[in-house]
Amino acid sequence: MNETDIQEGDLAELIGLKHFHQIIRIKSGETIQSHIGLIKMDDLIGKPWGSMEKSHNGNTFFVLQPALSDLIKNVPRNTQILYPKDIGFLILNLAIGTGKRVIEAGTGSGALTIALANAVGDEGKIYSYEIRPEMQKVAIENLQYAGFDSRVEFKIRDIADGFDEKNVDAIFLDVPNAYDYLSQVRKSLKPGGFFGSILPTMNQVVLLLDAFKRESFVFVEVCEIFIRYYQTDADRFRPADRMVGHTGFLIFSRMVQKGSNSKSQSKFRIDEKEDDISESVGL
Amino acid sequence: MNETDIQEGDLAELIGLKHFHQIIRIKSGETIQSHIGLIKMDDLIGKPWGSMEKSHNGNTFFVLQPALSDLIKNVPRNTQILYPKDIGFLILNLAIGTGKRVIEAGTGSGALTIALANAVGDEGKIYSYEIRPEMQKVAIENLQYAGFDSRVEFKIRDIADGFDEKNVDAIFLDVPNAYDYLSQVRKSLKPGGFFGSILPTMNQVVLLLDAFKRESFVFVEVCEIFIRYYQTDADRFRPADRMVGHTGFLIFSRMVQKGSNSKSQSKFRIDEKEDDISESVGL
Amino acid sequence: MNETDIQEGDLAELIGLKHFHQIIRIKSGETIQSHIGLIKMDDLIGKPWGSMEKSHNGNTFFVLQPALSDLIKNVPRNTQILYPKDIGFLILNLAIGTGKRVIEAGTGSGALTIALANAVGDEGKIYSYEIRPEMQKVAIENLQYAGFDSRVEFKIRDIADGFDEKNVDAIFLDVPNAYDYLSQVRKSLKPGGFFGSILPTMNQVVLLLDAFKRESFVFVEVCEIFIRYYQTDADRFRPADRMVGHTGFLIFSRMVQKGSNSKSQSKFRIDEKEDDISESVGL
Amino acid sequence: MNETDIQEGDLAELIGLKHFHQIIRIKSGETIQSHIGLIKMDDLIGKPWGSMEKSHNGNTFFVLQPALSDLIKNVPRNTQILYPKDIGFLILNLAIGTGKRVIEAGTGSGALTIALANAVGDEGKIYSYEIRPEMQKVAIENLQYAGFDSRVEFKIRDIADGFDEKNVDAIFLDVPNAYDYLSQVRKSLKPGGFFGSILPTMNQVVLLLDAFKRESFVFVEVCEIFIRYYQTDADRFRPADRMVGHTGFLIFSRMVQKGSNSKSQSKFRIDEKEDDISESVGL
Repeated sequence: MNETDIQEGDLAELIGLKHFHQIIRIKSGETIQSHIGLIKMDDLIGKPWGSMEKSHNGNTFFVLQPALSDLIKNVPRNTQILYPKDIGFLILNLAIGTGKRVIEAGTGSGALTIALANAVGDEGKIYSYEIRPEMQKVAIENLQYAGFDSRVEFKIRDIADGFDEKNVDAIFLDVPNAYDYLSQVRKSLKPGGFFGSILPTMNQVVLLLDAFKRESFVFVEVCEIFIRYYQTDADRFRPADRMVGHTGFLIFSRMVQKGSNSKSQSKFRIDEKEDDISESVGL
Repeated sequence: MNETDIQEGDLAELIGLKHFHQIIRIKSGETIQSHIGLIKMDDLIGKPWGSMEKSHNGNTFFVLQPALSDLIKNVPRNTQILYPKDIGFLILNLAIGTGKRVIEAGTGSGALTIALANAVGDEGKIYSYEIRPEMQKVAIENLQYAGFDSRVEFKIRDIADGFDEKNVDAIFLDVPNAYDYLSQVRKSLKPGGFFGSILPTMNQVVLLLDAFKRESFVFVEVCEIFIRYYQTDADRFRPADRMVGHTGFLIFSRMVQKGSNSKSQSKFRIDEKEDDISESVGL
Repeated sequence: MNETDIQEGDLAELIGLKHFHQIIRIKSGETIQSHIGLIKMDDLIGKPWGSMEKSHNGNTFFVLQPALSDLIKNVPRNTQILYPKDIGFLILNLAIGTGKRVIEAGTGSGALTIALANAVGDEGKIYSYEIRPEMQKVAIENLQYAGFDSRVEFKIRDIADGFDEKNVDAIFLDVPNAYDYLSQVRKSLKPGGFFGSILPTMNQVVLLLDAFKRESFVFVEVCEIFIRYYQTDADRFRPADRMVGHTGFLIFSRMVQKGSNSKSQSKFRIDEKEDDISESVGL
Repeated sequence: MNETDIQEGDLAELIGLKHFHQIIRIKSGETIQSHIGLIKMDDLIGKPWGSMEKSHNGNTFFVLQPALSDLIKNVPRNTQILYPKDIGFLILNLAIGTGKRVIEAGTGSGALTIALANAVGDEGKIYSYEIRPEMQKVAIENLQYAGFDSRVEFKIRDIADGFDEKNVDAIFLDVPNAYDYLSQVRKSLKPGGFFGSILPTMNQVVLLLDAFKRESFVFVEVCEIFIRYYQTDADRFRPADRMVGHTGFLIFSRMVQKGSNSKSQSKFRIDEKEDDISESVGL
């Protein structure tokens, strides 16, 4: 048996021919009861990943390792979660990689927490703040399930009271009034550090833009990420009929010395972005 | 001096008030000649990140650590590169994290290579294949510059001849005729492994979808990622006038046992995706 | 009583406070039975448009003249219909205005037919071809309902057999294999005339692009129109959660002398379009 | 000679093989001097539309009737103009057709005015208000050029002073502070009439949404229209690299009895729209 085979303790994604889709952790001796029949985990252990298997009553399913994006989309949740299209981009934009120390608030159901913990590796650390204990309980279970809980410190706190850490590499706020906490951010983010937020309404974005000016957060970027899926029939290749129209506005900025001239900076950054655009299209 | 200060050997992004933007590596004793004047690196060492500095003739600039997305967009290049919006999403969708072994072809200018190397950490490895030696030379320099070259094995090879590695976790093909190499992929990707590609035209996508059917690659997803930037003036908040209209189609699939019924699977996956969409909007 | 008041024979849109929405024709003596109660038309006649009225059991509703876009979206249908976002653009792009003579095929449920008939006025004429009699029956009723039937000649015909008219100003094909009928179009479209089509899949578009080359249809444009709705709460202004992801590709071209060099023409047109884009954004 | 041939007084679009594109009015005896050579109009008169012709020094060009969308995009201008994607949709949404009486402000360069005049026919009338005389001068010339000036009454006026007409069918405001003029609109729009506006920033939209509540304008819709062009090479079919990212937010509402409950109405309308969306995708 080797790493290309299904083993005790692995996370596995079971996908049936239609309408069966489940992510489980493999435990010998256990049996899954599903609407496509019983599935004994002992029958899966030792099989190669990607195997096509059958339930006790003959229904076909595949056994796969879940992608991080699958894990994220399938976390049990009691809140709106961030989606892979947004998470993937913000991780690059906040320079999150192995060994980084990152604060997030609020924890929510832990979807972003899983992705951040994956990105910082065992050398890094995520400090995840939440004001509602019952909410964070779900997130802790989700992180344990994903196997990343050792990389996360969970805290119950009103972030108006500030964060415990100093000089972290990046702070991401997924709270409705992110604009109220920039002075708390300043005390815990390292100089020049990366700040990000996601906000659903334009009214909130405008308030955050105003707060950036007062608090010397510069090089501001506001964007939305859209994903358009296609139907995968080669003979009738076409976009999907429906798409998600909105998840949130992503806002990024850099914290510089208090009192720096932020106004000209954000304008400059827009020019930069436009230049990048022309480069990207080969002009 | 500590990690919150600028140090010898650090990568630094210098951004002026307008039209000055440069990523450099800090080396004591060196001087940058720019159109905003001379900048001595010794003047920067020891200053906190995010400092506002001045060139020899008084022009203001900020010194920041570059985000991975900034590094990627600024690599010297002689090819079209992948962009952060696409890279962030594909890393999550291919389950790339600490310790993973990943094949990519072609290397190109190394923009994706940098992001993959960042994601797998010191425990992982990227195997990067390219057919044009002069192209990969640029990429190697870019990886050295980013400080990730030790995580990458560069190879000059026509991938029609196959890859050297076995049982890698994921393979990403950024070559025009990706559909010609699925049998080579099968020999090197571990069972159930993650396959991804980016293709500019729909004709190419259709050929790849056909190849998936023949070669038992299932759970196919085809999508495009759009990014819409906003102007950041709080009193006149509005989307940017121009946007990038197209970079490429992202295609993902999973390799299962040869001969598995791929047709029903891809259809099923579409249903799944639609379900995910309804969840994501709280319906 | 004057044209600002509701009169016998008018089309009226009744909209309740929630989940009541109906377009009717006002007939004295008649009563509407709805889930918000009985509504006597005699009670509406003579009231000003925009009035807030009540059903027999006290439910509030407004009485408005329907917009053409409302009429179109509400036609009884047994087929996929074209939507206002696409119809509005194609009318301008095909130069359809008062007095024009236009062929369309197939008729479908008549949604486009209504808009075309509205645009050509009493001086113009729409020739609408359909192969399925039961389908056109619905369209004829819809046109009568909208009051535009006198401007339309309906024909049951396999358009492989050609059209009866000569030298019409524009031809629009909403049939799956539009690419099979360009020689029939040539016989009935006036020299230099406007050709348009809508096709759901890229495979179909590619076949039509090939046909254009063979048949000397030039200045080709292919586009998609998206509409993004916003939630209208001023305090929480944000895009709608969901949007329509795809209706169809719109294709436009001009018919020139047989044998003209079409290849360079379509390329040129792309440049033109790019120029238009830069103009439109004030660069 | 007949209507399928080029005649004295016709508008003609001349398109060369590359980088030549001009809309002119045919006048016998005149000669066009262009960078592709001299073109004598007498050589064009009597030729069929769509003809491929040559300039005095042998450069090829086609002669076509311009689409309304071509005319609009080519009007001489000293302001930002509305574009066909927006104009086509608003004409349907404001129920503008033969015989309608419509107020617009400001006139600007007359791009929208041309399209409105085309839509109302000889039986209708456009009342176009502008505060800057030098601006309207350009628009008047553009309308004369397009041949629609007899359908338009141009007025120089600060619309704070109100409009002269009563009970018009629709009013469209393309002025930055549209939210300041709803009481003037109420005096001139017929009961239940159609109101529309286009505004570039979200801050302006929010102010207009607030004004709607105060002034009993209901059934509010806010949307954006995007157009995505494709490159038309059948062997390499793909979206264009660049696209226009923003022209403006389109806002529509209906004027009802003063004091009607607008709040519930706009919410209801959103539900309606969502229903329409599900219908449009065949669910």
